[in-house]
Amino acid sequence: MRSRLAYEPRDGALFHTALTHRSATGPNNERLEFLGDAVLNLVVAHHLFAAFPEATEGDLSRLRARVVSAEPLAEAAASLGVGEALQLGSGELKSGGFRRQSILADALEALCGALYLDGGLAAAEAFITRLLGPRIAALPAPEALKDPKTRLQEYLQSRGLALPVYSVDEVQGEPHAQVFEVSCRVGALGQIAQGRGSSRRRAEQEAAERILAAIDSSSGVPRE
Amino acid sequence: MRSRLAYEPRDGALFHTALTHRSATGPNNERLEFLGDAVLNLVVAHHLFAAFPEATEGDLSRLRARVVSAEPLAEAAASLGVGEALQLGSGELKSGGFRRQSILADALEALCGALYLDGGLAAAEAFITRLLGPRIAALPAPEALKDPKTRLQEYLQSRGLALPVYSVDEVQGEPHAQVFEVSCRVGALGQIAQGRGSSRRRAEQEAAERILAAIDSSSGVPRE
Repeated sequence: MRSRLAYEPRDGALFHTALTHRSATGPNNERLEFLGDAVLNLVVAHHLFAAFPEATEGDLSRLRARVVSAEPLAEAAASLGVGEALQLGSGELKSGGFRRQSILADALEALCGALYLDGGLAAAEAFITRLLGPRIAALPAPEALKDPKTRLQEYLQSRGLALPVYSVDEVQGEPHAQVFEVSCRVGALGQIAQGRGSSRRRAEQEAAERILAAIDSSSGVPRE
Repeated sequence: MRSRLAYEPRDGALFHTALTHRSATGPNNERLEFLGDAVLNLVVAHHLFAAFPEATEGDLSRLRARVVSAEPLAEAAASLGVGEALQLGSGELKSGGFRRQSILADALEALCGALYLDGGLAAAEAFITRLLGPRIAALPAPEALKDPKTRLQEYLQSRGLALPVYSVDEVQGEPHAQVFEVSCRVGALGQIAQGRGSSRRRAEQEAAERILAAIDSSSGVPRE
């Protein structure tokens, strides 16, 4: 584990604490996780700010959520061997807690906190860049993270066209398992499309996605 | 304004952008606000981490919320003269937008982002410490930020005593303007107290606060 950290700690105890879950005895990693979460958020925010000069504040928030959510963090932690190095109480050990996503992600945040305290922002930044840089580089265009209804609305607004009109055509099934059928009409473009889904919103998103696909095949609006 | 910043920018345009609200023309401060929010969160997290070595992760989160919420940030921004330096569109100008809490707080975050880009974390940290240090120093003990029910529960748990029992004694008034009367019984201490409020929860908090006061007058449990 230490070799994969690619960092020689001055204060080894700090890193031991970062890898100690609250189920174990002794100082645990919860306070370091609080600090490391802030370190991670800043480093990733700075990367995204530089990498996406045209992205809005909302785009940047959505992009960051993709990078610092539990799933990618747990994956990164697993790739470092954090699961094997973790100190867990006997209960968590037996229940396989070292494989739990949240426990791995929290430990990774705590490691960021320890690196920041031990080697400053530069040390934490080098670690985070090495670990999450490839994921940042593989992010989709900010536009693609917006839902279809939002993209369709923005496409029409930017051209001064009237907004789409959604209507529910049919609701089928029992109250606890309904299926909605919805139409989306864009009069200005002479387009109409249907969508189905387990909620009105989902059906509308599908219908909007179809309108975008139809526009795209002729003019090239950004798609996921 | 610049003199109150106590910092000589290398890139003046960056600071002009930080002080430009989206209602004005040209590049605005929203992206810098995204970055600055992360800078501020890290600097305050680090301060609190160091200042409250016994505080839990939850305590630290609650303490930070007190420092970086819109109200204290807007106050700090006003003390710097941010309102007068802000570039606003004519609509926001007429409606007094330069006095709006959220606009001032956002501009302060954007300034933190500009300082970070222009002078690194050290420059941002010096600024934030000067501006918010007194507020951090004046924070109450972490314990006091917990609500009365939580404090009472933790007090009893730490002594191995049974949890309090809450019961609704009476509900008065029309459905839209109800008043709840609630009792809180702590059998192990022979204590009982009543509380009133516009919701069951509020009434319970008041009752718990009274039990804490009664305990406090004999033994000294932490109070706000």
